Amino acid sequence: MNKFLRVDMRNQSIKIEEAPAKYQFMGGRRLISQLLLDEVDPTCEPLGRHNKLVIAPGLLGGTPAPCSGRLSVGGKSPLTGGIKESNSGGTAAAKLARLGYKAVIVEDQPQEGWYILKINKDGATFLNGENLLGLDSYEACKRLREEHGEKIGIIIIGVAGERQYRLATCAVADPEGDPARHAARGGMGAVMGSKKLKAILVDDSGADDLQCADRDAFLATSREWAKELAATKTVMTELGTANLVLTTSALGCLPTRNFSSGSFEKAENISGQRMRKVIQERGGKTAHNCQRGCPIRCSNVYVDEEGNHLTSSLEYETLALMGSNLGIDDLDAIAKIDRFCDGFGVDTMELGDAVGVAMEAGIVPFGDVDGVMDLLQQLKEGTVTGRVLAQGTEIAGKVLGVRRVPVVKGQGISAYDPRALKGTGVTYATSPMGADHTAGNCLPGRTGYRELTKESPDPCSAERQIEMSQDLQILTAVCDYAGLCFFVGAALPTAKRVAKLLRDRFGKEFSVNEVLEIAKDCIMTEVEFNRRAGITVADNRLPEFFSEEELPPTGSKFDIDNKDLQTIFDNLSVEVEI
Amino acid sequence: MNKFLRVDMRNQSIKIEEAPAKYQFMGGRRLISQLLLDEVDPTCEPLGRHNKLVIAPGLLGGTPAPCSGRLSVGGKSPLTGGIKESNSGGTAAAKLARLGYKAVIVEDQPQEGWYILKINKDGATFLNGENLLGLDSYEACKRLREEHGEKIGIIIIGVAGERQYRLATCAVADPEGDPARHAARGGMGAVMGSKKLKAILVDDSGADDLQCADRDAFLATSREWAKELAATKTVMTELGTANLVLTTSALGCLPTRNFSSGSFEKAENISGQRMRKVIQERGGKTAHNCQRGCPIRCSNVYVDEEGNHLTSSLEYETLALMGSNLGIDDLDAIAKIDRFCDGFGVDTMELGDAVGVAMEAGIVPFGDVDGVMDLLQQLKEGTVTGRVLAQGTEIAGKVLGVRRVPVVKGQGISAYDPRALKGTGVTYATSPMGADHTAGNCLPGRTGYRELTKESPDPCSAERQIEMSQDLQILTAVCDYAGLCFFVGAALPTAKRVAKLLRDRFGKEFSVNEVLEIAKDCIMTEVEFNRRAGITVADNRLPEFFSEEELPPTGSKFDIDNKDLQTIFDNLSVEVEI
Repeated sequence: MNKFLRVDMRNQSIKIEEAPAKYQFMGGRRLISQLLLDEVDPTCEPLGRHNKLVIAPGLLGGTPAPCSGRLSVGGKSPLTGGIKESNSGGTAAAKLARLGYKAVIVEDQPQEGWYILKINKDGATFLNGENLLGLDSYEACKRLREEHGEKIGIIIIGVAGERQYRLATCAVADPEGDPARHAARGGMGAVMGSKKLKAILVDDSGADDLQCADRDAFLATSREWAKELAATKTVMTELGTANLVLTTSALGCLPTRNFSSGSFEKAENISGQRMRKVIQERGGKTAHNCQRGCPIRCSNVYVDEEGNHLTSSLEYETLALMGSNLGIDDLDAIAKIDRFCDGFGVDTMELGDAVGVAMEAGIVPFGDVDGVMDLLQQLKEGTVTGRVLAQGTEIAGKVLGVRRVPVVKGQGISAYDPRALKGTGVTYATSPMGADHTAGNCLPGRTGYRELTKESPDPCSAERQIEMSQDLQILTAVCDYAGLCFFVGAALPTAKRVAKLLRDRFGKEFSVNEVLEIAKDCIMTEVEFNRRAGITVADNRLPEFFSEEELPPTGSKFDIDNKDLQTIFDNLSVEVEI
Repeated sequence: MNKFLRVDMRNQSIKIEEAPAKYQFMGGRRLISQLLLDEVDPTCEPLGRHNKLVIAPGLLGGTPAPCSGRLSVGGKSPLTGGIKESNSGGTAAAKLARLGYKAVIVEDQPQEGWYILKINKDGATFLNGENLLGLDSYEACKRLREEHGEKIGIIIIGVAGERQYRLATCAVADPEGDPARHAARGGMGAVMGSKKLKAILVDDSGADDLQCADRDAFLATSREWAKELAATKTVMTELGTANLVLTTSALGCLPTRNFSSGSFEKAENISGQRMRKVIQERGGKTAHNCQRGCPIRCSNVYVDEEGNHLTSSLEYETLALMGSNLGIDDLDAIAKIDRFCDGFGVDTMELGDAVGVAMEAGIVPFGDVDGVMDLLQQLKEGTVTGRVLAQGTEIAGKVLGVRRVPVVKGQGISAYDPRALKGTGVTYATSPMGADHTAGNCLPGRTGYRELTKESPDPCSAERQIEMSQDLQILTAVCDYAGLCFFVGAALPTAKRVAKLLRDRFGKEFSVNEVLEIAKDCIMTEVEFNRRAGITVADNRLPEFFSEEELPPTGSKFDIDNKDLQTIFDNLSVEVEI
């Protein structure tokens, strides 16, 4: 696994390159951060010719390591104006890795036409993509499977990406071949759309097995770990990420009515427990897996009363930002919204935040499901209102004249109010990724690798939140470069296992500190890209309303000093103390 | 003239303070840049409680020096996210200066209500501003004159400012008391609106004469200069700024149809020459003055066929950005658009750019006057389309999916295509003010103060444009801190006269280098504010289409290296060489 597939969309040329040695121990997010810093002018226009879209499996991609099938998608973000990596489950990452690709690098833009890039063991070719334009992505994937086989891996943009909407995702097909998993954040779908690349197909049939320096040791560690995950992650298997709804509502950090409360009086109705009951009664599926061989299986297939597929998978972030944040407690309605977003290629978090802001502006009342459906229709039709929402929360806030706009660095905050989960607030404020819980989510119970972080702080206290965020940003980046789903745990034991697996894969010793060091390099490279792009530590701050308004029911405000947020990356420690 | 009038809108309290000694030789833009750096957190939200609006006459404000009545209005800009100073003619600056005020500093926001601040020789008081809400500003000024006297100075926002539209201006009433002059750029009207300050009234009756260290010398210099200006600026007196239409069209830098051409085939129809003829035939007024005693009198009163007031004053930037840039060659139509913008409180440049972008998006065809009138109506009604335009060119471009968007640092480019007037392009790219010709307009014939800049370069050549822009940014800042209209000439002779006038006013020797040094300090203070705000030299660049697309008819592209633009302020020289 040491090749780059470099495609130039200007003239549809394809080059397969040996990856230079410096990239050997870089994968996923780490590889993307370095390639972008090395090859892309940070001041370029995100939707212009000079940006690049980089797609990369992690260092453990394509191996039997559990949950190693995350696909990283990156580029300069049209939403934040800075660097972005967003990753997704699905089947494509493992297939790309098995074909020997560390990364697909998509450059420039064609003067006309739309394209599909098909990759297989013989190389890659361009196909005409025009006949997929305008389709719902479920339908587009169905046609692609019909033409190219059921087992094809698919990375695809929806109509939102075609139109370069800033909340457009890159969907990655799940084992059923549906566009149900998304590299959702930062508008990577718009970047792919700007390159007129409708889809990438990955056919790994006939690929050689990945080489391992010590295959037996690697398999033993993987098996043991998978077993442990299956035994310990039972809540995730049963309830999926939706298990968090009642937890965050109880903690008081569940975004409710555009972040005006941290608890939703109808949280029960959109809880994981309720969803599991509904799914089981109707004959849907819980314990669904988004990538092959996952021992956690947190995904689900949500069906309607007749048992027909409504959406897959209904996740916590969607339940919160399209549910409580909009004052909606109707699971079926949220499932329909989610299905629309999957098919149209839209980030449910960014759109949920934007609709919340539109509701605060009085465009549609809170709780009005029909009103939200009308907004989705407007998004589809491309009315001016639809196009405002399509540009994300910050622009919606500006256009609609709302002051309470939950964004950092141009990106909507995800489904944890930072006033009652302050470590995650620190991550929102400081991550080079913009407001993104997947950069380091400091939920109670999570711990870092230092003395200071061996116990989880009170989520409403300002104490030790910066340290927690630092550690969890590092530990999350470990997962992101290894290609691991962070549900294996963004935690020290994971870093230890990654050290072992990297050793057995590459035949080189890795200390835990070295494993963390790569993550630190990843983040610092992103910070540097952003600095050159003109996004600086001055942007490491939350909107003012979070420090001015008390959040019911805890009454908590975000009270971590902006000066401390500005200096968070000055001395990132990766020395393991515990 | 050494007092600050500090008003806290939170509790409507008013303080009159002795200005600290460090501000003694700061006025206008220089004073604003320092006050903002000293008192405002650069990372604050521009429309939030922590921004301040600062209004300041220049160091020569209120004196008999010709054209010394510019009023600087500044704050953190909601359009650029950086520091902003925008200045205007009208009568208020001289009155404020005569009352002894160096600056009015408006802080915080009230919890309810709208206010008018009335300033006179006895101090200042708040009046209820609610009954002026929603009015056309011409009508509002009429009512204010009826109530407070014909001679009152007025600074007022329109409905655009009330709604905090990012293209809202602060209007400054002219000698007739009409809101015809505007501190237009950067959304200062939105900042004033965010503070619920509808208007500031300045009554200088009974004010003492300004003190001068050497009154006779000061008057002699002023008189001699005024005479020279009256004798040499005859083109400005006859044709106003509109004289530029044929010049820029001939040079190929007149923005035409959203910056897709630099010459307009119907330029003749919107030329200064044509306008003068129409005004004279209909009984309007050329050689109108915007401030008392101006020897240049570049303003005009444009009337309809019946001789009724249509607008005052029709300026080059409006003729270009609301005319050729929209494919419109109908003077009466442009006059009506201008009148709407004055009454509603809108920057004609920002709106012209935004409408040009909307035309490129196909919202309204180029040349469609009725379509533009409909967009203005939508702005007034606050439809979503109207609100998109109201947020300025950058956001209009994003929402409407246009790639050719003429902005720098979030602000629309003014009426000179940078590809065929490259020095001005350098100013757009680098000025801490965002794309703003008033920060240093490098028209042919203009010269700096160094050997390198003693001759004006070919506007399409890349040679010496950075040096020209550096010198003219400095020379313009001299006018901006002195409170001089830059039509006296942003040039070395002006700096020499300023040195003399400052000496005779303050009784302290000023060398020409010292006069330039203050201007340099002004710019560097702004650069520092922006750096702290997160706007860096990485933002010193033009949109990519200016370097990728050839501009007809010259075929010129903007080809000045971005690296050179990034370092332009590293070594600003203020050593006079010629």
